[in-house]
Amino acid sequence: MRFSCHQKALLSSINIVQKAVSSKTTLPILKGIYIEALDNYLKLVATDLEIGIEHIVEAKTHNKGSVVVDARLFSEIIRKLPDAEVEISLEENNQIYIKCENSEFNIVSYNSQDFPELPTIEEDYSYEISQDLFKNMIRQTVFATSQDESRPVLTGALVEIENDTLNMVALDGYRLALKKGKIQSHIDNKVIIPAKTLSEINRIISDNEEQLTITLTNNHALFVIGNTKMISRLLEGEFINYKQILPKEYKSKVKVKTRNLLDSIERASLVAREGKNNLVKFTISDDKMTITSNSELGKVHEQIYIDFEGEEVEIAFNSKYLIDVLKIMEDEEVYLEFTTNLSPGILKPVSNDNYIYLILPVRLSSN
Amino acid sequence: MRFSCHQKALLSSINIVQKAVSSKTTLPILKGIYIEALDNYLKLVATDLEIGIEHIVEAKTHNKGSVVVDARLFSEIIRKLPDAEVEISLEENNQIYIKCENSEFNIVSYNSQDFPELPTIEEDYSYEISQDLFKNMIRQTVFATSQDESRPVLTGALVEIENDTLNMVALDGYRLALKKGKIQSHIDNKVIIPAKTLSEINRIISDNEEQLTITLTNNHALFVIGNTKMISRLLEGEFINYKQILPKEYKSKVKVKTRNLLDSIERASLVAREGKNNLVKFTISDDKMTITSNSELGKVHEQIYIDFEGEEVEIAFNSKYLIDVLKIMEDEEVYLEFTTNLSPGILKPVSNDNYIYLILPVRLSSN
Repeated sequence: MRFSCHQKALLSSINIVQKAVSSKTTLPILKGIYIEALDNYLKLVATDLEIGIEHIVEAKTHNKGSVVVDARLFSEIIRKLPDAEVEISLEENNQIYIKCENSEFNIVSYNSQDFPELPTIEEDYSYEISQDLFKNMIRQTVFATSQDESRPVLTGALVEIENDTLNMVALDGYRLALKKGKIQSHIDNKVIIPAKTLSEINRIISDNEEQLTITLTNNHALFVIGNTKMISRLLEGEFINYKQILPKEYKSKVKVKTRNLLDSIERASLVAREGKNNLVKFTISDDKMTITSNSELGKVHEQIYIDFEGEEVEIAFNSKYLIDVLKIMEDEEVYLEFTTNLSPGILKPVSNDNYIYLILPVRLSSN
Repeated sequence: MRFSCHQKALLSSINIVQKAVSSKTTLPILKGIYIEALDNYLKLVATDLEIGIEHIVEAKTHNKGSVVVDARLFSEIIRKLPDAEVEISLEENNQIYIKCENSEFNIVSYNSQDFPELPTIEEDYSYEISQDLFKNMIRQTVFATSQDESRPVLTGALVEIENDTLNMVALDGYRLALKKGKIQSHIDNKVIIPAKTLSEINRIISDNEEQLTITLTNNHALFVIGNTKMISRLLEGEFINYKQILPKEYKSKVKVKTRNLLDSIERASLVAREGKNNLVKFTISDDKMTITSNSELGKVHEQIYIDFEGEEVEIAFNSKYLIDVLKIMEDEEVYLEFTTNLSPGILKPVSNDNYIYLILPVRLSSN
């Protein structure tokens, strides 16, 4: 195997696939990047057996072939090389020879035969969605997935395609985030994608309107973005019937400036976090909302002007769950909807119906 | 005690003194900031008993008095408040009341009587030096101080004032950094300032030509920068007679581009660090320097064009000690001077004589 490739192009390719390299693994070869020199391009692959990423980059191939190099060492070498053409060849005893201007490296490599192949996905039927929309869907839901490995389905997000709409849903038993997006589709579908996969996809895709192609099989999801392919295992099991949880009506409705609400809750949570559940209390009546919290550290009293209709309400929440969602809201104003102080509260953007966030209240000791 | 102060001004004052707050201490009050409301200003003080910082900020004082507040909680509260006037008063039961627009806090405070007073320093004779020069002196030496607490004097830098020159010297047994700067002075002096103090001063002073005032006593150094005072304990003991260590002559002299040398050594060190001492080998002859290194991971061969006079030399160093100094060199070119491959190497900027870096070689196994 012998090829040459420009340092910057090779580095950017390494940076993409490296996200799938296993950080802790009992299989040493998974710490590697598989590099195959084909006619006029290289194929780089990395996988931790959950996620696999493949990237294609232009190169001048003199002899075809493949190797597996240690991801960390190889990426550091390429990163430190000058902005010039890099020649790489496989020599005797599995040695890789790397040359760039006046620098020469000889490093050991793994046998490429031992590298696991990525699963083959039939791309019979695929969905297309713009990258910025998909990025936004991930950003607004994935934080609400559960960290608790004892309920595996909740460590992923439901991706549900029905009637030309893609619903992405995450929930952890305390809150639920639902984001809807338009998608062209003739086939409905429903899978659970691990949160880690979505976070990695989020790092790879751009904030523009170029299309991302998604293929879903029974066990895998395949994402294709330009020269990059990412394959992920799906989570097995039945997702919670989330539609049942969403309240159909409300008794009180508040319109409030997102920024003011976030600032007030963040201040209130400064003393709240000493307690166990970051408890902050909301008292809503007329045109104002009072947010209070207290602990051994002290107490806080915040007041915000609001638009309000319906019944007065006094309700308490874990401030973390509100701060999480208010930080990712793009709208200047949000609606809050309440029924009783024991039933879930709802947060929605004012400008559209594409996002719903549900949060369970904390029972006040006086109830 | 009752005063009001603008949020931004109060926050910036907190940020300055907070650097002296003890992170781990058995004395809870040292986790606090002492605030004293005086006629038209506040005095904020924090100390970990090694370093003390005092800062003065304008305020409207309604009632004089003092309190000690928990540094972390108080700074987070002030940071999160809106950009507006903040009213603060001491209420019953040591409660501090904080009000800013529609936010109100009540937090507990410590008794200000229990806060340790900073030592009084007689400012009879002081030195003045421009902030940017002092910052530069710290940056170019303090990294060479020792981390080894068993030899306390080496965990600080020698500050030696003689004949209108300030010499700052740090050494750790493997390398030595000496930076010289002009200073107006009638009195010679010699103290050892802890590296931590110098690093904190470095964060407080600006990159401009405004003056910094330094007062040195037997036990303390006082630094005055605008409205900020910093007092530090000095290290006791005798500093090593560094002048004896500096070689008077050399047999080989190399002129090389700083950037090229740094890049090559960084690349060579990628495989070198697997070994115990980051060993990289330099072979210097004619107009080129070859830098090599090898370990179980592989081997590297680098070549750089140089200006060279004197005897050919083959010498090895711990790459870390060279990378440290090359990263802080501002000159485009440096001189390297060698005598034998068992005696210290010298690195100097080409453009001036104000900086000398000495580094001990590593004995090559073939010697």
